[in-house]
Amino acid sequence: MFLKKKLNAGKSVMGTMLSLVYNPDVARVFAEAGLDYFIVDCEHGAYTFREINSLVSVSKNAGTAVLVRIPQVDRAYVQVLLDIGVEGFMIPGVKSAETMRETVRLAKYPPMGERGIGGGIVTDFQNVNLPEWIEERNGEVFIMAQIEHRKAVEDIDAILGVTGVDAVVFGPRDLSVDLGVTGQVNHPKIFECYEKVYESADRLGVTKGFFTGGDASELKWGIERGARVLLWAGDATALMGFISAGVKTARSFPGYKT
Amino acid sequence: MFLKKKLNAGKSVMGTMLSLVYNPDVARVFAEAGLDYFIVDCEHGAYTFREINSLVSVSKNAGTAVLVRIPQVDRAYVQVLLDIGVEGFMIPGVKSAETMRETVRLAKYPPMGERGIGGGIVTDFQNVNLPEWIEERNGEVFIMAQIEHRKAVEDIDAILGVTGVDAVVFGPRDLSVDLGVTGQVNHPKIFECYEKVYESADRLGVTKGFFTGGDASELKWGIERGARVLLWAGDATALMGFISAGVKTARSFPGYKT
Repeated sequence: MFLKKKLNAGKSVMGTMLSLVYNPDVARVFAEAGLDYFIVDCEHGAYTFREINSLVSVSKNAGTAVLVRIPQVDRAYVQVLLDIGVEGFMIPGVKSAETMRETVRLAKYPPMGERGIGGGIVTDFQNVNLPEWIEERNGEVFIMAQIEHRKAVEDIDAILGVTGVDAVVFGPRDLSVDLGVTGQVNHPKIFECYEKVYESADRLGVTKGFFTGGDASELKWGIERGARVLLWAGDATALMGFISAGVKTARSFPGYKT
Repeated sequence: MFLKKKLNAGKSVMGTMLSLVYNPDVARVFAEAGLDYFIVDCEHGAYTFREINSLVSVSKNAGTAVLVRIPQVDRAYVQVLLDIGVEGFMIPGVKSAETMRETVRLAKYPPMGERGIGGGIVTDFQNVNLPEWIEERNGEVFIMAQIEHRKAVEDIDAILGVTGVDAVVFGPRDLSVDLGVTGQVNHPKIFECYEKVYESADRLGVTKGFFTGGDASELKWGIERGARVLLWAGDATALMGFISAGVKTARSFPGYKT
């Protein structure tokens, strides 16, 4: 478990989103590049449990935490993914405190929740002192709410007030749709929501996250406001950016024959 | 078949190298980014025929050509890969004309070579007029020699003089090792070799290629000297570059907690 140790020590953590690549060695690339964590996108991507299993196995040696964005909060995701070594979840489209309460219920062992006790991967194949182990694990599971609707912004105190919610982050594009400024992710209305959510997070002691598709000035805005769970997404953007830049560069030279 | 049509029309073609990603959708990312072709690296990568099969299937619709860099010239690679729709080969570490003659023998149907006639993927699941079809296909298979040793530079006229060799490209790092300037890929000795090879290619009517790991000034050098098969590599570099830049950017802001 890597992520909450860093966060509890007051550090910022930098991550990315995986939606295209499933070669487990990508975790080693990310670790070498200095990344603290990555999120496997099961809301918009086709990842299987077996693929995530392999990504986690490589990540454990690389020292990078793996989170998953799940498309819905249910036991089939939460129980299995935690038991194959995923450190926590990004919960998209949160609209009510109930969604976060359900996440905590499924993700934490009793008495905090109702997670079932497994072994193997999740105990590092060792015998454990169960009372100690349960308490440690309950403290390590990381839960981050993704706020992308007006309703969630309005009810933000209730959502972030749920015990076990560690962090909050935004979904700029869905939020822009819901605010009637579709695609204008830098619209003032968006940033009004960000400010309101951050104010609530600060008051309730929830760690602030910030999501950007690789925009330095956006990232600066988030870091200046104290965001520590930083998300610089993602793999397809990286590939598209590198190749587009190469194609543009090549075509800029007079000898390139079009 | 996409690549030789463009080259025969006098166009430049831009490609990259795949060594990490095996999600077939990467072909669509590349096509959207304006890439003409990509090379699956079976010299240094773990790709299976089935993975290449899927990459080719998606690429056919996307309009991007797939080549493979094979670790050795033998029938198990050349026959199978062409028959699952690969357009041609990059042959690494070429040291003699014999290697290229063997490549042509395996890659071309009689009378040019001894390629066996298959159907299915390679005939687009159609019945074909075999005499016409054989002639067309023989003209479309693309063969590129990768020069990365002094011996090859010395024998370059013989290597590029083999009928069926379409293009030539370099392997800067192996060449630097062989020249005793290990890792100094911009050493004058390297560029002396490039000049000698290009002179031979121009004289023999072989298309010039140029390889760079994403360096614009290197690419400019190649394009200015008439290189048209451009290789801007690769997928791992793209991911590493995007994430490293993000991490560096985040750490540059005062609010980032290390």
